[in-house]
Amino acid sequence: MKEELNTFFGIFSGTKDAIEKFMNMLDPVIQNAKDDHERLYYHHIYEEEEQRLSRLGSLIPLISKFQKETDDRAFSPANNEFNKLLQELNLEKFGLHNFVEHLDLALFSFTDEERSTLLKELRAVTYQDYQQVKTYLQEINDMFDTDYTDPHAHHDEHHDHLAPQNFQTQTIQTPRRKGFTVGSLL
Amino acid sequence: MKEELNTFFGIFSGTKDAIEKFMNMLDPVIQNAKDDHERLYYHHIYEEEEQRLSRLGSLIPLISKFQKETDDRAFSPANNEFNKLLQELNLEKFGLHNFVEHLDLALFSFTDEERSTLLKELRAVTYQDYQQVKTYLQEINDMFDTDYTDPHAHHDEHHDHLAPQNFQTQTIQTPRRKGFTVGSLL
Repeated sequence: MKEELNTFFGIFSGTKDAIEKFMNMLDPVIQNAKDDHERLYYHHIYEEEEQRLSRLGSLIPLISKFQKETDDRAFSPANNEFNKLLQELNLEKFGLHNFVEHLDLALFSFTDEERSTLLKELRAVTYQDYQQVKTYLQEINDMFDTDYTDPHAHHDEHHDHLAPQNFQTQTIQTPRRKGFTVGSLL
Repeated sequence: MKEELNTFFGIFSGTKDAIEKFMNMLDPVIQNAKDDHERLYYHHIYEEEEQRLSRLGSLIPLISKFQKETDDRAFSPANNEFNKLLQELNLEKFGLHNFVEHLDLALFSFTDEERSTLLKELRAVTYQDYQQVKTYLQEINDMFDTDYTDPHAHHDEHHDHLAPQNFQTQTIQTPRRKGFTVGSLL
């Protein structure tokens, strides 16, 4: 479980920086929007990412706390804080998914080289992060074999459109994250 | 507290129906989208509302449970389930806020009388619901005077643009916090 927590910590710390880069890109677009529709559109996406950033402000310290936890019994559905961790991770799995789509939407409009290069980089990393978090959460939930059920599980079935091969401008390969082994969950 | 719970139950049961009406409106638009950009745009909004619908599937029974609760001691930050209730309510406060904006965005595009009439109805109800939930949550958090802090409290300051009278003629304020750091949210 420690290894998964280390990966989660890296992913969610990294995505915090990515959100800020994206918000900085949106800021002048909102300022200079050509009409109310365009302004609301970018402002809305900005706000959703701002909400996510704010939630990460409580998730990341919670991950840290479990990284330092030495009592194995804490990693149990009997521990409310562990349940909270799993719930928040599940929510932020969807946060990553939605971020991929915000980036994809931006790629349709920000076609200049500077912005599209950055967007593609953020998109590639975020897509990998989403897949990694999804895989780990599935394994963790299976392992604990608890009453905990992913309220969004049905949702993922519809997400093939997120696959990189379906995305027209997906060309960037990012280095794989630090190696991890699946199976050492406890 | 019972009165607030009854109101929450009514609001979140009602918004479930509203989501379904909105999704039914989006469905043919996605099917008949003129290009990938339009398809992704509506599909993305559809998915975010679908995620919210799924979360409401666990929130509403939790509200019901507290509606039936006869032990006053359950309504305490010492009770983990009560904390969970407050956290989920807070998240769905933002769900309502984002729904208002999804409806506003749709109003820019779906200008025919049938759809715009329904959208305006849903928008008016959802805006009221959002304000009601925000007020109640503020009161509840003040009342319990707990460590519980709303991670999104800063966010509401920017939401004057949601006021109905400001819609269409509003000038959205761009967030002032240029280059703000996440640390300032903690």
